[in-house]
This record gives sequence, structure tokens and C-alpha cells, in this order.
Amino acid sequence: MKKDYITTQDFTKEELLDIIHLSLLIKANIKAGYPLNVLYHKTLGMIFEQSSTRTRVSFETAMTQLGGHAQYLAPGQIQLGKHESMKDTAIVLSRLVDVLMARVQQHKTVVELAKYSTVPVLNGMSDYNHPTQEMGDIITMFEHMPEGKSIEDCKVVFVGDCTQVCASLMMMITKMGGHFVHFGPKGFQLRGEYLEIAEENCKVSGGSYLITDDADEALKDADFIYTDVWYGLYESELPKEERMKIFYPKYQVNREMIKKASPHVKFMHCLPATRGEEVTDEIMDDEKVSICFDEAENRLTAMRGLLVYFLGKKDETIEICNKNLGR
Amino acid sequence: MKKDYITTQDFTKEELLDIIHLSLLIKANIKAGYPLNVLYHKTLGMIFEQSSTRTRVSFETAMTQLGGHAQYLAPGQIQLGKHESMKDTAIVLSRLVDVLMARVQQHKTVVELAKYSTVPVLNGMSDYNHPTQEMGDIITMFEHMPEGKSIEDCKVVFVGDCTQVCASLMMMITKMGGHFVHFGPKGFQLRGEYLEIAEENCKVSGGSYLITDDADEALKDADFIYTDVWYGLYESELPKEERMKIFYPKYQVNREMIKKASPHVKFMHCLPATRGEEVTDEIMDDEKVSICFDEAENRLTAMRGLLVYFLGKKDETIEICNKNLGR
Amino acid sequence: MKKDYITTQDFTKEELLDIIHLSLLIKANIKAGYPLNVLYHKTLGMIFEQSSTRTRVSFETAMTQLGGHAQYLAPGQIQLGKHESMKDTAIVLSRLVDVLMARVQQHKTVVELAKYSTVPVLNGMSDYNHPTQEMGDIITMFEHMPEGKSIEDCKVVFVGDCTQVCASLMMMITKMGGHFVHFGPKGFQLRGEYLEIAEENCKVSGGSYLITDDADEALKDADFIYTDVWYGLYESELPKEERMKIFYPKYQVNREMIKKASPHVKFMHCLPATRGEEVTDEIMDDEKVSICFDEAENRLTAMRGLLVYFLGKKDETIEICNKNLGR
Repeated sequence: MKKDYITTQDFTKEELLDIIHLSLLIKANIKAGYPLNVLYHKTLGMIFEQSSTRTRVSFETAMTQLGGHAQYLAPGQIQLGKHESMKDTAIVLSRLVDVLMARVQQHKTVVELAKYSTVPVLNGMSDYNHPTQEMGDIITMFEHMPEGKSIEDCKVVFVGDCTQVCASLMMMITKMGGHFVHFGPKGFQLRGEYLEIAEENCKVSGGSYLITDDADEALKDADFIYTDVWYGLYESELPKEERMKIFYPKYQVNREMIKKASPHVKFMHCLPATRGEEVTDEIMDDEKVSICFDEAENRLTAMRGLLVYFLGKKDETIEICNKNLGR
Repeated sequence: MKKDYITTQDFTKEELLDIIHLSLLIKANIKAGYPLNVLYHKTLGMIFEQSSTRTRVSFETAMTQLGGHAQYLAPGQIQLGKHESMKDTAIVLSRLVDVLMARVQQHKTVVELAKYSTVPVLNGMSDYNHPTQEMGDIITMFEHMPEGKSIEDCKVVFVGDCTQVCASLMMMITKMGGHFVHFGPKGFQLRGEYLEIAEENCKVSGGSYLITDDADEALKDADFIYTDVWYGLYESELPKEERMKIFYPKYQVNREMIKKASPHVKFMHCLPATRGEEVTDEIMDDEKVSICFDEAENRLTAMRGLLVYFLGKKDETIEICNKNLGR
Repeated sequence: MKKDYITTQDFTKEELLDIIHLSLLIKANIKAGYPLNVLYHKTLGMIFEQSSTRTRVSFETAMTQLGGHAQYLAPGQIQLGKHESMKDTAIVLSRLVDVLMARVQQHKTVVELAKYSTVPVLNGMSDYNHPTQEMGDIITMFEHMPEGKSIEDCKVVFVGDCTQVCASLMMMITKMGGHFVHFGPKGFQLRGEYLEIAEENCKVSGGSYLITDDADEALKDADFIYTDVWYGLYESELPKEERMKIFYPKYQVNREMIKKASPHVKFMHCLPATRGEEVTDEIMDDEKVSICFDEAENRLTAMRGLLVYFLGKKDETIEICNKNLGR
């Protein structure tokens, strides 16, 4: 039975930890200069309903580094559910490629694609969540874990608008048993179904969550501060004046905000960033605080791990990497 | 001397059988898990004047599976005969890639491209014919041949509009010595040059052809029923109301029509299908009757065979596959 | 420390000769049928702000032939300095690919990209120069050197509009110590900063340069005649009537012009050519005079050399090729 990666909610904490460790092992192997060929001659079909730099480039590089190839099906080049039913497209593509990823306008599109595909489908971002970003983010936190702490001890604060990246971060942190805070203005806070997920995850994991517009409460002892743009989706951007009125200056990540957090706090951002809006140049470029470029690189780390995992090459890959690295 | 694949009319039945058997052998080799590298480091340049999913994805996957790479030159990214003469473009591309494919608006474009190129050119569909589809289709028929029959005994009925897929099917079936029927309304039937080809092919092969709007005569004892969309080309689609008036309900492939054919009849479609127009959901999804998804997969089967054949790697490939498969 | 290839002015004559000889060695190796894998699993990110056939196809083929992969980021698919600062884009892409190339509208864009990138950046043409074309061109001249001459003895005449290709040719020829002439109408002649570069290069190399609209002086004893289109950039083409008035017939490369040069003169063109404007069919197709298709192929020759050189694989590659070729 094929498995899909549509939301991390479909996986247990242990399964997600498996993917995290696999991703880190492959990263160590490649950084050490050992080529991997576990996806030799395999093809990833990448469907993009919206354009993207990071997701596309990191998936394509990942396939190359694993011995396979990624096909870029750009917006407009393939129209899901237009000239043929989604079902037919899904079945046909499943006959021609080994794995699919889709960045979609509407979450139901990737759900339906996975339903009919006979090969694994990876969600490359929808209007609901961004699970490959999630995976890269948690990997980055593992790499920058405060000394003596584990993820279960960490307070992770998302600042600003309740984007799908905010929702995804919440899902991952509460699943892992960490402490998640969304610090955002009323009307732009996580709500509805997302809160049910947070509740459910914390019950299982022992984690906690908090939705608040109180800066002191939100930021106190924060281990990680994370933010995203304020303009929403490219397709319907909030005008600058409007978004500044809502979020500025209270929700800007700047030196003052950083000072309210733990002394070892790290700054994260899924990028692209609008410098001067949700984050200042000073914080973005502070090499002691900002880990957002490591985070960007870990999109690639995550893609490799996910591709290997969902194509059923986990055990083989672990064996090869351990042997290469003398572990 | 390089050979091109512009129309199957340029080849003898024996040559086409060679490509069919080569394609099936490579398919068996790959399904058995043996990688092939006969096109190692080779490049296919894919020129698309119109967008396409199946043709593009199957060519690109084929190159990857054979150890090479396909470059996707999307509509607008390369303009044949615009900023430079077709001759210059053909000569230059021939210096930079190992083989070319082109999906063109007008047949003369791919003919001219082949004339000036010094590397093989494969026709990825024109307004005149669709020879890579032809090759995938005949391979599918070979795989689903009625027991005790050979292609020379088969009655293959194309239902509906005389598209380039209809024309291509006619060329292949009459070349092979089979019995081809175009069952379509007057004004939308194969005519002119196509009938001369049918005539000529049948004379050589012993096959037959019939153009008719008589359902009973057309469908009686049919081994394969094939259809295509009614809307014509994407660029100038026939409005739904208009096309329904012409073709519906007489030319819809539904249970009633299937019953008029042989009990073992198989349903084929080049896809994409407009379910509810030229074919019902019931037939499309009937796993005993519909082989249209196997047919879609055989686009890939055909592409691999064609690439190996026209790049002059037939003998080497047969030897490798036979050795791998212990034949 | 990474090096970039933004302009040949950043390199000494000896360094450029190194790249030329490396490129020719790799070409010999590949023509002899020996595969190279020195860029195994490496990724080139190709950023195009303008569309291009030759540059894109030759870079992509080069990566495939060297065991790597090129990602095509088409115009509009990645927007430098739009949704994020150039700095952030440069840093992020540097984490995801091994080398970048960019074809840009404005030269300062590729300069800035190189400044912030931590991987090598290759200039795939700007409004200022075209250094990968330069490299292919000088390689072509080396291959077609008049008997008994070296590049220092050659007179290279660029005819027509002072395009970035004209400027690039000037930089390369004066750097090499050859004799460069720009034969063009007043108002369309190289000027300003370009003349300072010519001056400076000649002082070091012992070469010479001349800007003139005197046909006899320009063409006498010319070893190579080079031209480019008269319409300027695609984005703001000079109307046909206007450009003909400026350049025609005086600056058209035709039989009469060729007769004024050395008997062994060779004709070059970066392509695409507008046959009947800047060059006649007769000269373009004269196999004894025209080397413009060899020149087009040497785009690929140059790309391979540049990629190997800037990815730090020169020594390894020379060793492999020499061994393969028994040198």
C-alpha cells in the first residue's frame, strides 16, 4: 500500500521522528561527499498550480542528488481537472512517474490527487498547510536545539499572521510534545479546525499550545521565534498600508522583541521575507540569532528524506549511509 | 544516415514490428527491475508549440529511464521560424542535442525541422498525424490481442471525429494488415489523402478499410473500439452544444454500443477523455473492457522503443535485455 | 574562495587560455566517446530574465554530459529582487544548488547576484557583455586559426551595431593581444567605458583596436569577420525600416565585403541571424567561409569548460581526459 504525505496529522510522532533522523543521516552522508543512488532512474512529477522557488529547486536538487530526476510541470502546463477529470490525470500520471508532488491552490486538490494516484503524493503546500516546510523546520530545530533541551522542552513562538506555515508549525510542534504559541492580533489568529488539532495533539503528546496577543506572555523564555510575511498569498496580496496597520510595529521581529525571549533564542522564517516589515535587517542578518538560511537549506534536507521514505527506500538508505559514515 | 519518425508511412510493416518488439522487450526489462543505460548522457530536445501532458511526461521519463535527459522547450520558449529561419534553428539544435522531438501546430513544421536537422527528429503530434500515439496503441493491442488472433485478423473501429489520432490509427492498422473502420458522421469522416494511404497500405498488407456511418456494419465483431474527444484542437474548440448536436448520442461509446461488438471487445482512448460525451463513465471504468490506462502507460513504452531505435541502439539494447531476462 | 565569471576582464590572458585549453580537451574527450562524470550529481541553477535557446540548451546539455543536472528557471518563474531581496535569493539558492548562471536584463543584477552568492555565478548575458559567447567564439577561432598564425597575429573585424556581443568580442581579442576592429556607423560604434577597456587591454597584451566606418581600412587582411543582428534587444526591437536605413547596404556581410578581406577569412555570427539583413544567404551557407554553426556548437564546448573550471574540477578533468585520450 502506497502512503501519501498530505498532512503530518496522518503520522505518529515516531513515524515523523523516523523521517527526521533519516533526513539528517542523508544530509551527513552527502556533506561527507558520498553520492547516493537509491532513487536511480526514478522520476518525480512536480505539479505547480502556483509558482515557487524554494520548493521547486529543493525537490529538483534532491532528486538529482539521489540519482533520479524531477519533472517540472509549471503552472498552466498541466491543468488539474480541466480538460480531463482529476481521477484520469492521477491514474495516467501514476503510470508515467514514480512519485508526485503538488503545490495547489486548494487543499482538496492534493487530497483528491492522492486518492486516485497509485504512486505516493507529497503535498508541496496548499492553502491549508505546508508539510514539507514543517519537516525542514523541525530538522532545523533539532540541529539548533538549546543545550540540554529536547524538543519536548522547547517553546516555539510563531509571530504574526495565521498563514498555512503557522498552522503547519503548530501541527508539528504539538505533535512532538513541544510548547507552541501563536502570537498574533485577534482576527488573524489560528482558529476552528486548527485548534481542534492542537488540542488533540497535545492530549497525546503532552505538549501545550497558546493563542495570544500578549507579547510578554508569548515571548517569555521562547527558544525559537518564527515569522512569515504579512501580505498573505501572492494571488490576493494585502496592500502594504493595510497590513502595516494590522501588524506593525507590535508583531515585527526586531531587537526589542528578541530581548523578551530566552537569551539563546533563534530566529526562523520560511522565506521569502519582506525585510523592514515582519523582520528587521538587524535580526535577519544576525548570525548568532538568525537560522533562517540553515532553515532554507533544510528544505532540501527534508525533501531528500521524504522522497526516500515515501519511495520505500528507508532501510536500504540507512544501511548505505551508515556504512559510508562508519557508524 | 539519420532516420526520422515523421509518419509511419515511411516504414515497412517489418520495420514497425521491429520497433514494437523492441519496445516490449525494454518494457519487460524495466518491469523486471533491470536499469538500462543505453542512452547514457544523451540529450533529447523537446520542442512544444502546444502544451501537452502525456507526450512530454512520457518522453522525459523515457530519457531518464534510459540514462539520458530530456530538455523541455515549452511553447513560447523556442519559436520555430520566428527570429531565425527554421533551417538555422534545426542546424544549431542538431549541434547541441542528440535527438529532437517536436509537437507542432502544422505538419510542415516538423517535416522542415527533420529536413534540416542532422540528428533524428520524432514527430510528437501535428495537425496531420500522431505517430508516437500510434506506436503506443499498436503495442497495447499486441498486449491485449484476442486469444488465437493476430493483428491481421483484428477489426479495429475508430468512433467519432476524424482527428489526427483517427488518421494515425488508420495508417497503423492498414499497414499491419488489419481491418480498420472509421465510424463517424458524414462531414467528419476520413477523406482525401488519408483514403489514398488506406488504399495503398491495404494493397500491400492485405488489410481492409471502411468509412461508414452505419453502426451495425461498423461495430459487428469489432475487436477494438477506439474514440477521441469531439471538441477538436484546444486552440479552436468546437462549443459543447455544437459538438453534441453532431455526435451525440449515436457516436458515444456506451454499454449499448459495446454490446454490438465482439464479446471480447476492448475500449481504447488516447486521452484526455471528456467523460459523458464521447464515452460514458461506465465504459471508461469497466476494468474488463477499458484498456485506456494501459494504453496511456504504453506511450512511455513506445517512447523508449522509438528513442533507442532512432538513436541506433537497437542491437545493443536487445542484447542487454535478453541477457538480463535470461532469454 | 569561490570565483565568478561575470566578465573576462576579471581574468588574465593566461587564466582565459587555461579555460580555452580545458574546453578543447573536454571536447576531444567527448567526441572520442569517453563519458565524463566530474560534475556527478551537481546542480546548475539557470536563471533567465529573458528567454534564450542557445544559452539554455548548451548549458543544460553541458551539465548532462558532465554527469550533473541543470534546472531551468524560466522568465517569471523566479523574480530576482521582487518578493525578496536579491541578497536573500542569492544566499538561499547558494544553499540549494552548486553553481548559478543568470541571463539578466541589467548587468548590475548579475553583479549583485554574484556578490551575495556563496557558489560561483556565471553571466549568461547582460546588456553589458556576453562572456560565455566570448569563450565559445575564441575557441572557434583557435580551431580555425589561419595556417601559421596565432591569435596575436589575427585581425578580427566586428561589423555593424555595437551590441554586447561586439563589446565582448573586443574584450576577448584585445585581452589575447589580437587586432580588433569595430566597423560600424557613427552613433552605433563602441564608446565610453568600452574604449577604456580596449586601451587598457592592448597596453598589457600588445594588441590593437580600431573603431571606424571606413570599409577598406576595416576589412583589409581581416582573418575573421563577425556580425550580429541589427534589431537590438528583443524587448525593444528597432523597426526594420529604421535599421535598414542605418546599416544597409554598407554593413551587410556579403560576397563583396568578403572579397575585401584576407582570402582565408572566416565568417562568424553569434546567431540568431536575420538572413538578408546583416548577412546574405550566400555567405551564411558558404561552407568554405562560414563557421557560424561550429561557433554555435562551441557554446556547448565553452559551457563545459567553464562549469568544470568554476566548480574547481580542472585538474581532475585534465587528468581523466589525458588518460582517456592517451596523451
